[in-house]
Amino acid sequence: MVLGPEPRPLPKVLLFGLVPVAAWFVIRPFIDPVPQVPALYTSIGLSLLAFLVTLYLIPALGPTFINSNLKGKDLLKTYSTPIPESQGLVCAAVYILSLILFIPFAFTTLSPPPNGKPSPEGISVLEFPHKQLSVYLSSIISLLIATFLGFLDDVFDIRWRHKLPIPIIASIPLLMVYYADRGNTNIVVPIPLRAVFGTLVNIGPLYYLYMLMLSTFSTNSINILAGINGSEASQALIIAVSVLLNDLLYLPWRLGFRFPLHLMGNTTEIEFGGVWGAGMAKGSHILVERHLFSFYFMLPLVAVIVAFLYHNWYPARVFPGDTFCYLTGMAFAVVGIQAHFSKTLLLFFIPQIFNFLLSAPQLFGVVPCPRHRVPRFDPETNLLHPSKAQFLKPPSKISTAILHIFAKLGLVELTRHSKDGSILEVTNLTILNFFLVHLGPMNEKRLNQVLMLSQTAGSVLAFVVRYGLAGLVYDGDRR
Amino acid sequence: MVLGPEPRPLPKVLLFGLVPVAAWFVIRPFIDPVPQVPALYTSIGLSLLAFLVTLYLIPALGPTFINSNLKGKDLLKTYSTPIPESQGLVCAAVYILSLILFIPFAFTTLSPPPNGKPSPEGISVLEFPHKQLSVYLSSIISLLIATFLGFLDDVFDIRWRHKLPIPIIASIPLLMVYYADRGNTNIVVPIPLRAVFGTLVNIGPLYYLYMLMLSTFSTNSINILAGINGSEASQALIIAVSVLLNDLLYLPWRLGFRFPLHLMGNTTEIEFGGVWGAGMAKGSHILVERHLFSFYFMLPLVAVIVAFLYHNWYPARVFPGDTFCYLTGMAFAVVGIQAHFSKTLLLFFIPQIFNFLLSAPQLFGVVPCPRHRVPRFDPETNLLHPSKAQFLKPPSKISTAILHIFAKLGLVELTRHSKDGSILEVTNLTILNFFLVHLGPMNEKRLNQVLMLSQTAGSVLAFVVRYGLAGLVYDGDRR
Repeated sequence: MVLGPEPRPLPKVLLFGLVPVAAWFVIRPFIDPVPQVPALYTSIGLSLLAFLVTLYLIPALGPTFINSNLKGKDLLKTYSTPIPESQGLVCAAVYILSLILFIPFAFTTLSPPPNGKPSPEGISVLEFPHKQLSVYLSSIISLLIATFLGFLDDVFDIRWRHKLPIPIIASIPLLMVYYADRGNTNIVVPIPLRAVFGTLVNIGPLYYLYMLMLSTFSTNSINILAGINGSEASQALIIAVSVLLNDLLYLPWRLGFRFPLHLMGNTTEIEFGGVWGAGMAKGSHILVERHLFSFYFMLPLVAVIVAFLYHNWYPARVFPGDTFCYLTGMAFAVVGIQAHFSKTLLLFFIPQIFNFLLSAPQLFGVVPCPRHRVPRFDPETNLLHPSKAQFLKPPSKISTAILHIFAKLGLVELTRHSKDGSILEVTNLTILNFFLVHLGPMNEKRLNQVLMLSQTAGSVLAFVVRYGLAGLVYDGDRR
Repeated sequence: MVLGPEPRPLPKVLLFGLVPVAAWFVIRPFIDPVPQVPALYTSIGLSLLAFLVTLYLIPALGPTFINSNLKGKDLLKTYSTPIPESQGLVCAAVYILSLILFIPFAFTTLSPPPNGKPSPEGISVLEFPHKQLSVYLSSIISLLIATFLGFLDDVFDIRWRHKLPIPIIASIPLLMVYYADRGNTNIVVPIPLRAVFGTLVNIGPLYYLYMLMLSTFSTNSINILAGINGSEASQALIIAVSVLLNDLLYLPWRLGFRFPLHLMGNTTEIEFGGVWGAGMAKGSHILVERHLFSFYFMLPLVAVIVAFLYHNWYPARVFPGDTFCYLTGMAFAVVGIQAHFSKTLLLFFIPQIFNFLLSAPQLFGVVPCPRHRVPRFDPETNLLHPSKAQFLKPPSKISTAILHIFAKLGLVELTRHSKDGSILEVTNLTILNFFLVHLGPMNEKRLNQVLMLSQTAGSVLAFVVRYGLAGLVYDGDRR
C-alpha cells in the first residue's frame, strides 16, 4: 500500500518571529500618538495571530477529525490514506473568534478625544456606533450559521438539491437586521435608463430577494468549483484579496498619488491621499466606514485561508469540506451586502459565473451528471484528463442542441456514435475540464495554478470594468 | 433481541388546531387596536410554531442522526436499540431561528405613533433601539456558539476536563458587547455592609469574571445532572418556567391585584396592574424592558423543551446530547446577565448547586469517578438502585474524612471492610443516587418525577427567598 504524505512541517522560525509582530499591532492603538485608524492596527495584529493559530491547529487537530469519521480519500492520488475532511471548521472557528475579539477595539473609543483634537477615525466615530455594531453582529451570526450548516452538511452528507437553501437560512439574520434597521432598498439606475426611471429606484422586497440570491450564488458557486487540491482555497483567497484591494482604494491614506485611470477609459483621474478625502471615498464618511467594515472582515479571512492553503496545497494534507465553502461564500456575501458593493463583488466572481453557466445543463438535469465531475486521474503518467459523462440513453433534442453549441464554442469535447453521429459521451461541464480540453492533460498542481491564473485575470478585468468602463453607465453616485 | 419502543405518535388534531392559533398571535400586532406590547403576541405565536416544528422534526430526523452515527444505547433498559443522540441540535436550530425571525417584530415600530396617542410598549420604544438590538444579537451569537460547541462535543466526544472552558468561549461575544457598550459593572451592596462599602461598588473586571463563572456554572451544572430519561429536559423546563414567572411579575398587566407578600416576610405588599407602573417594575422602563428581553428568550425555549420532552420522556425515544445542555445553560446565562437578575437566576439552580457540591469530590478526583455515574438498573425488577464507585486502593485520609461527613449527613452510603472498617465502596456522588439512597429503589420514570419535584420545590423556595427574605438585606435598589 502506498502511503500518503506526512503532515507538512511548520516553519517554526517564521512562526515565532511573527508573534511579537502581531502583538505590536494589537497594542499599537494604546501607544501615543494614537494612529489615524487605530482599529486597523488591531485588525492586522489579530489577523496575524489568526494566521498562526490556524497554521498550527490544522495539523494538530487532523487525527481528531479522522477518528470522528470526518475524513476522505483523495480521488486523484495513488495512495488511499485517509485525509482529514471539513477542516474549514478550524478556519471558521479561528476566523469568527478573531472577529468577536475585535469588537471592543472597533466599537470602543478608548478615551473621549480632547477638545479641539480630531478623534481617531475608524468605524468608531464620536457617538457610540450602535448601528454599526448591530450590523457587525448580524454578520457574525450569518457567518456562524453558514459554518454550522456547512458542518452539518459534512456530517450528514446532505444531497445537493437540499443544500441550495442553506445560504438562504444563513442570510436571514442579515436581512432581519437590514429590515429592522430600515435598510436602503434603492438601486442606482444606469445613466442611459435614467430618462425613464430617474436616478434612484426603490425596488423594495426585490432588494431582499437580490441579497438572498447573492449569498446563495457566492456560497454555492465556490462549492461547485471544487475537486482538486487547493481549488476552493485558491479561489477564495484571490477573491478575498481582490475585495481587500478594492477596500484599500477607499481608506484614508496619508500619502497622495494619482492613478492614470484615463488609460482604462475613465473620464477622470483617481486621486489618493489626505484624510477622509482619500481615494475613491471622496470625502464620504459613509464610504470609508463601509470599506473599513469590509476590510475588517476580509483581512482575517485572508489570514486563515493562507494558513489553510499551506496544508491544502498539492499534495493536500487536509480537505476543506463544505464548511470552508460556506464560510468563505457567506463572508463575501456579507461584505457585498453590508458594505454595498455587490455589483463590484460579482465582478470578482467571473470564473465562478462562467463555471456556473457551463455547469447549468448538468446541475438542472438536462445532461447526465455523475456523482463526481472531477477530472480523471491517470496513475501511470500522474496527469489529469477531462472526465466524461455518458449518455445511457440517446440525448434529448434540447441536450443535443445545447451540447452542439457548447462544442462549437470549444467548451466541451463530444464522443459520437460512429454510424448515426449521436452523442455518446461529453466531457463534464466544469471549468476544470474546460481547461484540460483546451490546454491538454496536466498534473493536478498545474491545473490549480491555471485556475488561479484565470481567477487573477478575472479580478484584473473586474477592476478595469469597475473603474474604467463603469464610468460609461454610472456616475459617482453610490448609495 | 428485545426491541425498543416505536417513535411516540404525534397528536395530530392538537397540532393542526394550534397552527391557526399561532398564526393569529403572529398577525395580532398588525390589527387595530394595536395591543399594549405588540411584540409579546408575536413572541407567543412564534413560540407556538417553534413547539410544533420541534415536535414534528425530532422524530422525522431521528433516522438521519442514527445514520450519521449520532446515536446511543439506553443504559437503563433491557433493549439495546440505538436511540438518536444530540437531538438538542433540533431544539437549538428551531429556537435560534425563531429568535432571529423575531428581530423585525421586536425592533421595528410598525408606524410612528400619532401625536397624543401613547406608543405601543415593548423593546421597541420611540427611538430605534440599536443598543438593545446589539445586546439581542450578541446573545444569539453566544447561543449559537454554545450550540455549535455542544454539537462538536457530541461529534468529537471531548473529555470533560477539556469541556469546562467551552461556556467561556461561548460567553465571549456577550462580554465583548457588554464591554463595548460600557456595561454596568456595579454591584448593589447588601444593607448590613453598606456602612463599609456604600450602596454600590464598582467591581470592574471582577464583574466579567463573575459573568464567565455564571455561564460556566449554568451550562455544566445541567450537563452533570443527567443520565436518566428526561432529566436534562425536565430541569431546564422548570428553570425556564421559573424565569418566565419571575419576568411576568415585571410586565405591564392591565388587571390590578395584590399579592400578600407580608406572609412571606416582606415588609411591603406587591401590587400588580396598570401600565409601566405594573408589578415589580414600579414604573421603571428599564426593568420592564429587561424582563421583556428575558421573556422573549424564555418563551420559545420553553416551547422547544416541551416538544423535546414529549419524545424524551420515559421510555425515551431520543437523547438530548451535550448540545441540549449547552443550549439551555447558555440561554439561562444570557438572560441572567443581560437582564441583570443573576442572583435570582442562581436561586432557581438550587438542586444543581446541591448536585455540584455533592459531586465535587468525584469531579476533582478526591474520590474515584467511574465513566458513568448513572444509577444501576436491575432488569429483573425494572428498578434503579444507587450505583457505586469502588476504591481500588485504600482511600486517602482526606477522602475518608469527606465521605464520613457525607455519610453522617445521609448523602451517601458506604460499604466498609468487615475487618479494619476502611471504605471499599461509596454510592456515586450525584443527587439521583442521593434520592435512591433515601427513598429506596424506584423505576426510572419515578426517579425523574422526584427530580422534577425537587426542582419545583427549589423554585418555590427561590421565590420565597427573592421576594421575602431578600427584603432583609436588599432594598428595592436594582442596577
